[in-house]
Amino acid sequence: MTRFSFQIATTDGAARSGMISMARGEIRTPAFMPVGTAATVKAMKPDDVRASGADILLCNTYHLMLRPGAERVARVGGLHDFMGWERPILTDSGGYQVMSLSDLTKVTEEGVTFASHLDGSRHLLTPERSIEVQNLLGSDIMMAFDQLLPATATAQQQREAMERSMRWAARSKGAFNGHGAIFGIQQGGLDETLRGESAQALIDIGFDGYAIGGLAVGEGQEEMCRVLDFAVEMLPADRPRYLMGVGKPEDLVEAVLRGVDMFDCVLPTRSGRTGQAFTADGPINIRNARFAEDREPLEPGCPCPTCTHFERTYVHHLVRSGEILGAMLMTEHNLWFYQRLMQTMRDAISQQQLFAFAKGFLERYRKSSP
Amino acid sequence: MTRFSFQIATTDGAARSGMISMARGEIRTPAFMPVGTAATVKAMKPDDVRASGADILLCNTYHLMLRPGAERVARVGGLHDFMGWERPILTDSGGYQVMSLSDLTKVTEEGVTFASHLDGSRHLLTPERSIEVQNLLGSDIMMAFDQLLPATATAQQQREAMERSMRWAARSKGAFNGHGAIFGIQQGGLDETLRGESAQALIDIGFDGYAIGGLAVGEGQEEMCRVLDFAVEMLPADRPRYLMGVGKPEDLVEAVLRGVDMFDCVLPTRSGRTGQAFTADGPINIRNARFAEDREPLEPGCPCPTCTHFERTYVHHLVRSGEILGAMLMTEHNLWFYQRLMQTMRDAISQQQLFAFAKGFLERYRKSSP
Repeated sequence: MTRFSFQIATTDGAARSGMISMARGEIRTPAFMPVGTAATVKAMKPDDVRASGADILLCNTYHLMLRPGAERVARVGGLHDFMGWERPILTDSGGYQVMSLSDLTKVTEEGVTFASHLDGSRHLLTPERSIEVQNLLGSDIMMAFDQLLPATATAQQQREAMERSMRWAARSKGAFNGHGAIFGIQQGGLDETLRGESAQALIDIGFDGYAIGGLAVGEGQEEMCRVLDFAVEMLPADRPRYLMGVGKPEDLVEAVLRGVDMFDCVLPTRSGRTGQAFTADGPINIRNARFAEDREPLEPGCPCPTCTHFERTYVHHLVRSGEILGAMLMTEHNLWFYQRLMQTMRDAISQQQLFAFAKGFLERYRKSSP
Repeated sequence: MTRFSFQIATTDGAARSGMISMARGEIRTPAFMPVGTAATVKAMKPDDVRASGADILLCNTYHLMLRPGAERVARVGGLHDFMGWERPILTDSGGYQVMSLSDLTKVTEEGVTFASHLDGSRHLLTPERSIEVQNLLGSDIMMAFDQLLPATATAQQQREAMERSMRWAARSKGAFNGHGAIFGIQQGGLDETLRGESAQALIDIGFDGYAIGGLAVGEGQEEMCRVLDFAVEMLPADRPRYLMGVGKPEDLVEAVLRGVDMFDCVLPTRSGRTGQAFTADGPINIRNARFAEDREPLEPGCPCPTCTHFERTYVHHLVRSGEILGAMLMTEHNLWFYQRLMQTMRDAISQQQLFAFAKGFLERYRKSSP
């Protein structure tokens, strides 16, 4: 079995459709990875996540190293056995959560010292420890450890963090033992020069795939697209390109048009738990009183289990009442919406119709959006 | 199709196994009804509730009349369509929740005035309104409206409440329009004379089935069994006997031995959400540290989806982390445990082996109980 290979089947402008092949299964690209933060895609059974069309999950190194702990997961057989998901799992490096969730973080050349958001205990995360944790979990695709900056960072801070992240990328690759695959992460904020230097540094190290980090952190879609316009093509065309933490359905479409192959985002699951359902006519808030006696499914025509079996009036009642089943049904619909969107884009690329699809999708989606 | 019929197939001592036949399906007895308080068995999809072996659900009139409202449920097609459960539904009368959940209740001969626990709005529930609400919901088995007493009630209060409940039972029957079935509820606390008078009053009115109310309200299992020893046989042998709000697995066994045919209880679902899993060796609390790296299923040998796919170490992690999937997996196991217990008792009755089964079950179950 191939350790890791990426075949592009069709291109359509900058967009590509293809397949990543790994020991635990194939990943159709462009791919959306549901987020299984603490070894569970919230409110979903793993078999139902698979049925939505997901080929791969993302799990969070930061959360799992704190609870239940990477060594414990390793002792009970690794993350796949633990959570009942046999297919590939990508783990992030922990760098993002350390900076966004922890208190008292201190960045040195060695790594990041932080206090757990759960119990305040002190931990040190280094490139070497991040890869070790990802190995203990049994990750299929590991991410190099990098440094996240707040949106307020100066140009000088951006350069320093990018350069440190590239030194950490080299140490991450050095700690990688050849099981599974490892991706590097391009940094450099919104700056073309920094993005170019970062891409070249990663290429010099050599990775199985290349991620774009530091976007979708509040810069807005227009600015994100402007950066993608130069950042994506800096990364090797024959390797998967992964836009981290993105995003809204319209972001996925814009990024696929620009040649991105992989995505992850908590939006479909988190939104599902707060009452937002995605539809081709834009998102709806099922808590809205206009759905109180609405006997349509969440999205008319949707083949997902929620839309096949239940009406808006019922989901409205469940979500308003705080019932767990409301979160379950909303999440399942949203994951199906995201996976159907990816399948439609893969098909459109195969038929050289992506631009026409994207135009029609975005017009319809935005017309009704709040 | 029969409106309502009850056939006893086998008896074993006082115990009976049989079948209730109704337009929406058959109910194997002795039957356990999962509780779908607000039109959802919490944390379960209806198809998965059915797969656990449930032939019938109980839904709460009090909760549904307040949210989403009985008239609304009727306008959107009734409770079965609303919640996606095609089989029979039994609705309680609301009497129990009015007294246990509401504030500012005032009991008169007409009915009970109360303030909603949701928004403080004032409502009047009478026998006629209770039956109307149950009709609007589309209930298959309706319960007569009765008066609940606190455990501190005096003998005189018990007599007055029982006698009022019997007048309300007659009014409930009078309001019943012949769609579905209606059960009366025996009251009288722990007193044999009152229980006898109550049973006779209900028989004089005439019901499709007879429930035993006012037990499992804190009197303890020994006292409950003492009352069942005389209360059950006061009820017609050719009609289903339903022990309301019961109970623990050992209560079900003791009551089936004494001739009870139907049960409902929130215990398997509520316990599931708080970390208690039922097993043949007694309940376990999955949060306990001894399960942190335990690779057995919740109950070794259990054929439920949770035990087939997941290990204690994972469920322990989910429940400790407050993950929704923890509630889902625990609830599903507990519902399977309850339904498997009922199936085992039905089989044991058919084979005239109930007493031997009960002895073995109770010995094993209690040996390890906390």
